[in-house]
Formats: sequence, structure tokens, C-alpha cells
Amino acid sequence: MTTQQDCTTLDANDPLRDLRQLFNIPAGTIYLDGNSLGVMPAAAPARVADVVTREWGTDLIQSWNKNGWFAMPQKVGDKIACLIGAGPGEVVATDSTSVNLFKVLSAAMNIAAADAPQRKRIVSERSNFPTDLYIAEALCRQHGMELVLVEPEEIAASLTAEVAILMLTHVNYRTGAMHDMAAVTAAAHAEGILAVWDLAHSAGAVPVDLKQAKADFAVGCGYKYLNGGPGAPAFVWVNPQHADRFWQPLAGWWGHATPFEFTPDYRPAPGITRYQCSTQPMISLAALECGVDTVLAAEAHGGMAALRAKSLALTDLFIQLVEERCEGNGLGLATPREHAQRGSQVCLTRDEGAYAIVQALIARGVIGDYRAGDGGRHKDILRFGFTPLYIGFADVWNAVEQLKQVLETGEWQRPEFNRKHAVT
Amino acid sequence: MTTQQDCTTLDANDPLRDLRQLFNIPAGTIYLDGNSLGVMPAAAPARVADVVTREWGTDLIQSWNKNGWFAMPQKVGDKIACLIGAGPGEVVATDSTSVNLFKVLSAAMNIAAADAPQRKRIVSERSNFPTDLYIAEALCRQHGMELVLVEPEEIAASLTAEVAILMLTHVNYRTGAMHDMAAVTAAAHAEGILAVWDLAHSAGAVPVDLKQAKADFAVGCGYKYLNGGPGAPAFVWVNPQHADRFWQPLAGWWGHATPFEFTPDYRPAPGITRYQCSTQPMISLAALECGVDTVLAAEAHGGMAALRAKSLALTDLFIQLVEERCEGNGLGLATPREHAQRGSQVCLTRDEGAYAIVQALIARGVIGDYRAGDGGRHKDILRFGFTPLYIGFADVWNAVEQLKQVLETGEWQRPEFNRKHAVT
Repeated sequence: MTTQQDCTTLDANDPLRDLRQLFNIPAGTIYLDGNSLGVMPAAAPARVADVVTREWGTDLIQSWNKNGWFAMPQKVGDKIACLIGAGPGEVVATDSTSVNLFKVLSAAMNIAAADAPQRKRIVSERSNFPTDLYIAEALCRQHGMELVLVEPEEIAASLTAEVAILMLTHVNYRTGAMHDMAAVTAAAHAEGILAVWDLAHSAGAVPVDLKQAKADFAVGCGYKYLNGGPGAPAFVWVNPQHADRFWQPLAGWWGHATPFEFTPDYRPAPGITRYQCSTQPMISLAALECGVDTVLAAEAHGGMAALRAKSLALTDLFIQLVEERCEGNGLGLATPREHAQRGSQVCLTRDEGAYAIVQALIARGVIGDYRAGDGGRHKDILRFGFTPLYIGFADVWNAVEQLKQVLETGEWQRPEFNRKHAVT
Repeated sequence: MTTQQDCTTLDANDPLRDLRQLFNIPAGTIYLDGNSLGVMPAAAPARVADVVTREWGTDLIQSWNKNGWFAMPQKVGDKIACLIGAGPGEVVATDSTSVNLFKVLSAAMNIAAADAPQRKRIVSERSNFPTDLYIAEALCRQHGMELVLVEPEEIAASLTAEVAILMLTHVNYRTGAMHDMAAVTAAAHAEGILAVWDLAHSAGAVPVDLKQAKADFAVGCGYKYLNGGPGAPAFVWVNPQHADRFWQPLAGWWGHATPFEFTPDYRPAPGITRYQCSTQPMISLAALECGVDTVLAAEAHGGMAALRAKSLALTDLFIQLVEERCEGNGLGLATPREHAQRGSQVCLTRDEGAYAIVQALIARGVIGDYRAGDGGRHKDILRFGFTPLYIGFADVWNAVEQLKQVLETGEWQRPEFNRKHAVT
């Protein structure tokens, strides 16, 4: 049995423990929702204030040159590139994940139409993040294609000669299950299929090597494990072999070869720049840069490999302590036990009360979230994200202790924990 | 001849003069570029700091309910609606102008395809803002339609039975020329054509009444006359008669009828909500709200009508003083003299040195901007925006005085003013 003292010792020996100081974490809070919204970097308030008062307030329009506003999407993109196995100049931080997915799916469909017009299917997972499916569905309708949804174990068999694109989220938002990006991409390529990856729950959370995996397109989120702030701009990567081949229909002046000539005809810029559309929110981009910097700060302490090792140790410990200490309380595990199949979150199931248990935990300062089941394969879940930059082993102990108390006291059955909020 | 004393008297009698206190304007600066990036509202630094440190830093994920994050696009949209003749619940502040134009053009094309499939043309102005043309061009390619570009005086004759959509920017970014929205919309409707308006240079700058004009769709910019900060989110409006008819292909979960059910199939929310795609940058949205509030503050002083009267007085004065005091220096006027055809900016032309003259003025604290000509109808221009919220009549006098000195001394010919910046 692991003891509280064991957890304290694990923290004392954690080579990443000092990174917690890069964040302002509210007192009395164990924040296990960094998979939804990362906590605020300590550097963010001053940086944002500087962008507002000096760059906007004082330098005004001159900031486009003087403070590098025009290049911010590339500057932040280059930093994100280091975390996902992409090269410099291959990533831009811009727009939202969904809008970026629209861009890369459009480009991938155009490539497919040129190279393999007989392929009319996009394959994805039924439990992929819904927006990804909506965007694909909308584009399929426009391009006369068909979106085919399968379960994870059916993916391999679904990769047939009718398929143009395989679109997957690397780590599932609901279960935390992770695909083997290199193996799945290789399987797709073996059948002549392009691989589009959504890194929303993996960038900054697990090692990602897009180029080694030979992925074709990727998008991802700035406000989860990259700690970029609420609704931070997202990012987009295109394999350099495709980048100059096709442009995308959100063809704005920021993606033009000569944006300041203001020509009436569109000529896409080389490379990833053509995946930019128009002026980006600078204040939010500056906050995103602070967030990305917190992940890059781990470089001095072993980098992504060290973050991954700690993440697995944290999620292993959480699973173990829940099973040891909350036994008999009806909790199940929706997240794979195998390390290679696990992201940086753990999802628990319970036939009854998942929503209310999450609310009761939040009232006790343990912040996770709830996702409703689908009435079928997927049950209601209690979702806990573990960000190794700022979560420690004692946090895991304490979170499980609170969970145990919420369950054993029956506290979650109180009416106030069963009232639904607008946003769940 | 108007004297400097006359200008001081005009300021003393200006009912809007106190509104300048809503802004932090850098000392020694006459800022005539609010048509490109509005100045910082004095309320913005504290509001942004609160969103960063309290809403994000302390309340974290609970802010979605507690601090109203999920409804921010509607909340800010409702405020913008007051400035453009739209009703509550009809506008959302979201994404960029270009992305929003993509949405409404997509919807308009779908309506046209359903109601008048034989109409295969979109008409726009050749000197419309380039991104608007790029987006239309990309969509035309997808939908098998044709983008026809005409000069302003050719618009009436271009509205034929082949045309599905007329897409115009209300106030031209380059010349400051303004269309009569009601008359042009009526002319389009008389021929069975939908009218899509880009309000980038008119929202907050001139009176706009979308519903009275019976416009079909509109988009606009948050960071120009709405003072929302660099790259602030944009906005989108759809005439309620169309809003529920068609959705748009950027079909994200924020536009879903039941976003938190996370269903794999897309069902658009009623009304304008379906024009949202996904999570928006909250920090930048909060700054935008501060900006919109500065324009709404004019309500107590006569509102948009008073702002318009002052704007015309400022631009009249600028034109008059340039002609009186800079005579013989080769300046021309690209902006219409007729009030009904003028936005809130004045553009001057000069055969030589327009770029360098703008740089020399900036060095003297008079901030305007430069836009390159097209080698044909449009010459290089010196562009000056007049935001009546914070620009006074003495500012106009002083700006013209600096322009006179830059021209008469030949100072603009110095090499440092002729070096091109990355962003012009």
C-alpha cells in the first residue's frame, strides 16, 4: 500500500518539482483540469499588462514592426514546434483548433482529389471530439465525400482503397486513450491514405514527433497543456512535403505572398504561412507564449521525456490509490492501464452520480470535470487531468482522499451538487 | 481662413470633448490611425488584468459559469448590435472578420443555390479589402461561381439576373468612400440579389442601420473604431429572416444546439449562435468589450448622430486646412467631399513620397498610415482616420501644421523616412 508519506517522498525526489513555481496556483486547490484549461503562468499577468499598456497603449500601430506583432503567430509557432517534433517555420499559432482543422482537412481533400479522386471517404473515431466530426461532416458534404465513424479497434480494418483521409485525435478527450501515432500513420500510408492528427490533448502532455511519425497534417489547442489562457489561439502544422502544394479556402491577407501589396488576387505565401488567414488577437497570443514557455522550461530538467515519465507516475499513482482507497464505491476506469495507450488524464466511471461527485470535489478544492456518457459504449465520466509541470504526488494523495470522503459520506447526493450548470 | 484659435474654440464647444478621458493617449501623439487600430481605453488594463489574474488565475475552469465566459461572444455582440442597427441576440463577437465573411458568404451561397440556382455570380468592388476578395474567390471556386469585380460607379449596372450576391465594404479601406447601404441594398434586392456588408471601417465610425437597410448579412472588425485592441475578435450579424435557414461549414460545438451533449452529429443552434465555431480568446474579448463600451459611452452625449456630426466636422476641417495651408505641395484628395459618401477618414495622394511623408509625420508624433497604390486608378495614399471619441479640432490643426512643415522643409526626403518597414 502506498502511504501519504510515500507521496511526500516522491515529491521531494521529483526533478521537476521546482517548475511548479512557474505558476500561480490558487491556495487550497488541487487542479486536475489542466487538460481543459491550463493554470496561469506566473509570468502571464506582467506580460499581458505590457502588451496592453506599452505595446497597444503607447506604441499603438507601430507595434506591428517595433514589437513584432506581425510575426507573433510564427514566433509562438516555432516554440510549439519544439514540443511536437516539427521544424522551425513549420507551425503557426492562429485561430481556433476547429478553424485550423477546417483548413488542413480542406487541403487534404484537395490533395486527395488531385492524387486519388476515386477515394471518397474520411475515416474517424466515433468518440472523437464532436467539433472535429462536425467540421469533417460539413466538408464532406461540400466535397461529395463520406465521413465514416468507427470504434478504435475498427480503425485498422477501415483503412481501405475508398479512404482518402484518416482524421484522429491523438489522445481521446473523453477516455484519455492514446493512439500510436507512428504506427497508425504508417498503416494509413500503406493504404495510400493521408493522416490528419488533432493534438488538442497531447501537445505539451505527451511526447509527439510529427516528422518521425511522417504525419501529414496536425492541429492543436493552446489553452490545455500549453497553458495559454482561456480560448488561447490554436496551432497548425503541415508536413513540408504538402505545405506548398495546396492552399486552403480561408485565404486571407496574412497568408498572402505579398500581404502589403494588397493585390486583388490571392497568391499564397510559401509554406505554413498560407495557413494564416487574418489579424490575430495579440493579447491572447502573448499569454499563449507565456504558457508555451512554461513547457519549454522543462527542457533544463529532462524535457518532454521527463514530463512524460512524471505524468505516467502521477496517473499510475492516481489509478492505484483510487483502487486501494475507494474500493467498493462503484468506480470504474475508462482510461487504458497500458502506458503506451494513455495520455495525461484518468477518467473514472460510475453508474450513478458522476456529475454530482465532480461538483462535490470542486467544493472541496479538487477541480476535475464531468463529461456525459452517450447512453451506449461510453458511460458518464469523472475526468482528471495531470499536468506534471504543476501537479505533485501529494496532490494525487490528497485528491483521492477527498474523493474517498465524498463517496463514503454520501455528500455528493446533496441537492446543491446535483444542480446542472450551463457549462458542465 | 480658419485659425488655430478657431480650432481651440471648436474643442471648447464640443459636447463630446470629455469622452477623450475614456482613453489613454500617449503624450505628444496625434493619433490619426484609429481606422487601423483604435487607441487603448483607460479601462482596458484593469479589466484585462482582472480576467487574467482573477478569472483565469483564480477561478480557472469555473469561470465558464461564474464569470460568464461561455456567453461572452453574445454579451459583446449585443453591445455591438446597438451600434449597427441590429437587435439583441442577433450579433456574436467571434473569430476574425475574414473567417466571419467566409461563414456568411457560405450561407448566402447556400441560400442562392436553393432559391436561385441559375445565379452564379458574386459582384464586388475591385478596390474592396483584398481578403474579402480572396475569401469570395476561394468560395466561388468551390461552389462553381464567378467573382465579378467592378468599380463603384459600375455597381448599379452590374446587378443583373446572373448575380446571386453583392458583397461590399460599407466604407472603403483605401479611399474612405462610403456606400449608401439602404439604397444599394434596395437596388440589389430589386434584382433578387442578396447584400453582404463588411462594416470594418464603419462600425463605431458612422451610423449603420442594418435592419432599416434590410441588409442580409454583415461582418465587421473589433480593433478599428471599436477600440478593441490589436487583433480583437470580429463580429457577425445575419438578418433574422435568414439566420435559421442555413448553417455554415465552420460548424463547431459552440454553434451546436446542445453543445454539452457532445453528440457526434451537428445540429445548429437557433439564430446567430450557429455562426459561432469554437472556444474564443477570453482575454482579447474582454478588451474588446472595454472598447465597445467607449463607443456606447457616447450615448449620453448624443450617440452615433453626435459622433457622426463631429467626425464630418473633423474631416471637413482637415480637408479645408490641408487645402489652405499646404497648397502648392502636390497633395490631392482621394476621399469624397460629399458628406453622404464619406466615412471617418481622409486620404491624400501625392505623386511622389507618400510613404516617406507618413514616416516623417510619425517621427513628429502625427500617426497616420500609408497604403500603396495599384499602379492604375489608385495612387499611393496618406491615410488619416478621425475618431471623434478622442480626436479634437486642435489636433487637426496641429496635424496639418506638421504636414505643412514636413512638406515645406523637404524633411521627408531624408533616407531614414524612405526605408521600408516590414509592415507598412
